[in-house]
Amino acid sequence: MKQARYEQRGPVPQDVIAAVESATPAPAPGQVLVEVLAAPINPSDLLTLTGEYGLLPPLPAVGGNEGVGRVAALGEGVSAPAIGTVVLLPPSGGSWSTHLLADPRALLPLPEADPVQLSMITVNPPTARLLLTEFVDLQPGDWVIQNAANSAVGGYLVQLAALRGLRTLNVVRRESAVAGVRELGGDVVLVDGDDLSRRVREATDGAPVRLGIDAVGGGATERLAQSLSEGGVLVNYGAMSGEACALSPAQLVFRDIALRGFWLARWYRLAPMAQRVGLLQELAGLITQGALRTRVQAVYGIDRIKDAVAAAAAGEREGKIVLVPNQT
Amino acid sequence: MKQARYEQRGPVPQDVIAAVESATPAPAPGQVLVEVLAAPINPSDLLTLTGEYGLLPPLPAVGGNEGVGRVAALGEGVSAPAIGTVVLLPPSGGSWSTHLLADPRALLPLPEADPVQLSMITVNPPTARLLLTEFVDLQPGDWVIQNAANSAVGGYLVQLAALRGLRTLNVVRRESAVAGVRELGGDVVLVDGDDLSRRVREATDGAPVRLGIDAVGGGATERLAQSLSEGGVLVNYGAMSGEACALSPAQLVFRDIALRGFWLARWYRLAPMAQRVGLLQELAGLITQGALRTRVQAVYGIDRIKDAVAAAAAGEREGKIVLVPNQT
Repeated sequence: MKQARYEQRGPVPQDVIAAVESATPAPAPGQVLVEVLAAPINPSDLLTLTGEYGLLPPLPAVGGNEGVGRVAALGEGVSAPAIGTVVLLPPSGGSWSTHLLADPRALLPLPEADPVQLSMITVNPPTARLLLTEFVDLQPGDWVIQNAANSAVGGYLVQLAALRGLRTLNVVRRESAVAGVRELGGDVVLVDGDDLSRRVREATDGAPVRLGIDAVGGGATERLAQSLSEGGVLVNYGAMSGEACALSPAQLVFRDIALRGFWLARWYRLAPMAQRVGLLQELAGLITQGALRTRVQAVYGIDRIKDAVAAAAAGEREGKIVLVPNQT
Repeated sequence: MKQARYEQRGPVPQDVIAAVESATPAPAPGQVLVEVLAAPINPSDLLTLTGEYGLLPPLPAVGGNEGVGRVAALGEGVSAPAIGTVVLLPPSGGSWSTHLLADPRALLPLPEADPVQLSMITVNPPTARLLLTEFVDLQPGDWVIQNAANSAVGGYLVQLAALRGLRTLNVVRRESAVAGVRELGGDVVLVDGDDLSRRVREATDGAPVRLGIDAVGGGATERLAQSLSEGGVLVNYGAMSGEACALSPAQLVFRDIALRGFWLARWYRLAPMAQRVGLLQELAGLITQGALRTRVQAVYGIDRIKDAVAAAAAGEREGKIVLVPNQT
């Protein structure tokens, strides 16, 4: 088997990671051997390689935090999941590998679908889904506004909103990002700017916009707030601008706008197991039906891990970078 | 009679306001004539003069939004409140006047107490009281943190919190403001600075602080957020710094801090009449008992309205500026 390993962290993530070969292990009693089918390269994976993430595994380590695999061998005393079952990899990390050993109780069986799309199920789609459902009780026909709409979360949100009959106002920072968001089904796509709230009112014909979703921070937060109707809720889940959210008392006090935050890690920690599994099964079902997808810029085999990481770290991408370890 | 009127709004509030004399009117049938005893100059009054407030009356207008008076004459068909009754002026505005005509049904009779203290009952004390009760369900012994603690609202909040058995962490921007807040009963008084959250944890011995109250904005908002416990609620009701509230995704996302706004005008618009009257009677009772008061820097007659407004607009005050219109 091959694993994408790193012995140390460093500022250039592709410099510290390398594919390393070793003997494929046999599963011990109570374990299963899983063949990894696909594992994405997420921004948090890159920050783990550079040492900038909030949680860092001890060194040496195998990269990757989510992915899907197929059960390849069962250890003594294990009867399920059956050999051949497609499973979500355990959240313990190390998904950038051709194979891994796992506790079968930590593996969630998934339907048969495109493993590349399924491999990204635990981070971005639940974020988008929970942003839509955990803060404001929206009804079909309601509008929701988001910035960073051309991000992976943004794209999932466009699709999940449409499936719920919601209409989306999508804000991007460059004209070249507009077409991609339209293609995924975004109802309205606007380039951010000082007159955003006026253009939003034109697009909605003055209909209420009660939920705003902010992944940018800085002045972009205030512009989303201005675009909400009185009493609206703005939820931040990231800071692509690198700045704190700016929100004027005029919005908070006179217009009763509330600013909240969302962290998927907290939701996973606090939600009951049945709810977590239910959400992942709902999302897996949508992916299997082809109703939920994200754009993929390129797929790499594990031997090209350095190229894959470099591509993921590059600025303007046209979609996710995904590792299909056994691809040559 | 004399009224403090303005024909236009402008950046320097004392430049647009002036005392204007006219004949004292007789009350029409169904009206009463009220002699104004005292009316404060609030920050919202200044913002109304400069045009920066959320609600602006049509021009020309008489300044002032709250005050107390004494019934001086009854129009035909009016039998109550009796001549001589001390009443809260109607919320329709124009309290900066020696006299005004009112619908007697809009006048709330008040107990006999210091009219200067009573005159400030409708804006700052309810703001302080509702900030304490409308956002977080606090129990005796709980901590609450506020900045601008030496403001009028801040002082009322210190006293109302103590009456409820709450403990206050009071943040001020200068050492010279510490003593005044201690004198009103503030449990802990801290000068704002980058290590505020560390000093808060020392003062509370790490006890939860679930409610923060911000009247400053800018970086002060972030420092209050850092001082709250996870899941805490920060309520903004003003922007003394002139800056938007800054709140990092680290506080919003990783620590689940929520940022809200409070506007008393909205509460008055939405709360049932019985609740509004009940709150004012509760506060009037506390003022009459001497359990609730605010510091007054100076009292001016209406002829000195420009000096009074300039004093209210000046930076570091030692208390409220109150108009006692008939004072010479």
